[in-house]
Amino acid sequence: MSDVLNLVLFSGTADKLHAAATLAAGAAAMERPVNVLVQYWALDAFRSSRIESDLGLSFDATVEGTKRPVKGTKSIAWLEAFRMAKELGEMTIYACTGSMDTLGIDFASLDPIVDAEAGVATFLMAAGDGQIVFI
Amino acid sequence: MSDVLNLVLFSGTADKLHAAATLAAGAAAMERPVNVLVQYWALDAFRSSRIESDLGLSFDATVEGTKRPVKGTKSIAWLEAFRMAKELGEMTIYACTGSMDTLGIDFASLDPIVDAEAGVATFLMAAGDGQIVFI
Amino acid sequence: MSDVLNLVLFSGTADKLHAAATLAAGAAAMERPVNVLVQYWALDAFRSSRIESDLGLSFDATVEGTKRPVKGTKSIAWLEAFRMAKELGEMTIYACTGSMDTLGIDFASLDPIVDAEAGVATFLMAAGDGQIVFI
Repeated sequence: MSDVLNLVLFSGTADKLHAAATLAAGAAAMERPVNVLVQYWALDAFRSSRIESDLGLSFDATVEGTKRPVKGTKSIAWLEAFRMAKELGEMTIYACTGSMDTLGIDFASLDPIVDAEAGVATFLMAAGDGQIVFI
Repeated sequence: MSDVLNLVLFSGTADKLHAAATLAAGAAAMERPVNVLVQYWALDAFRSSRIESDLGLSFDATVEGTKRPVKGTKSIAWLEAFRMAKELGEMTIYACTGSMDTLGIDFASLDPIVDAEAGVATFLMAAGDGQIVFI
Repeated sequence: MSDVLNLVLFSGTADKLHAAATLAAGAAAMERPVNVLVQYWALDAFRSSRIESDLGLSFDATVEGTKRPVKGTKSIAWLEAFRMAKELGEMTIYACTGSMDTLGIDFASLDPIVDAEAGVATFLMAAGDGQIVFI
């Protein structure tokens, strides 16, 4: 089955990265190939020197929402969820070449969970007519 | 026709919830089934005790943008739009079990517009090869 | 080939608009038709009086992230990327009629890169079973 799931990660906050990782793990467990293009602030989060830090929460919560106790806010296990997705199935994580250039991040400074570099065109080619989800 | 539209709601702000509800209503009116998975801050917004409150706006507006007069900012009718979508067609709203656990929200505390609980895997199964939109 | 790429632009920040424009340009270069529905804060950004301004960055970067030097932050060339997408292929930009009403923006005040007005239903009709990406 060729139901590739394609994720474009833009956000560098722990809650959105976790939402993405959960989708990826779910798809991988269903034997769907998963392509991930890591851009902008998500790319920044995948640097070796950052990836284990507390990345904070997005501003998609309202003020009252951010005051609610969130289990494990300080360490939402998003990276662990991505690692699990890789173990469960076929997931490839690409660093977006355009964002590497914009942010001045080179491939060697990224965590080894990132598999390769790719431009948007390459990513879209691999995506085919599979779903694309921007997070 | 099996063109299911699948929405993953993450954000709990009134403007994004309204954008989601409008997509849902448009699809429902075209007789497309709509599956909605409510996660994180969106799940927080669907609690009975919150759902009628002013949820504020997202930070996707720039500073100047937020100063523009927005008709009905205080009460963007996003819930009404979801209710309309349900009347227009076949829409099912699922509370994400993972987010319920993370935020400590139980099903009984959610507004009755939420139909059932579902995990990401169940949601992806129901999504099939239909479009997935993350909001 | 009928692999239409459909983008719903919600955010009015330069980084997200640039991410959207890059996807659009990539798809256009692959001879895929691109439909863009411009809503809410993105619509605000496409006003003639705003479109050349510095629109700032999204809050999807963490605090440390926003302190990193971003090449060209002050003027991320998102508009140029959209113009390139138009030259490369077939891209149509629609102003969302619902958002025009909500924000009190009329079509004449928008930059000429916006081709026409459209409601969500019309957009979904044109999208068919093509990918929908919400940014």
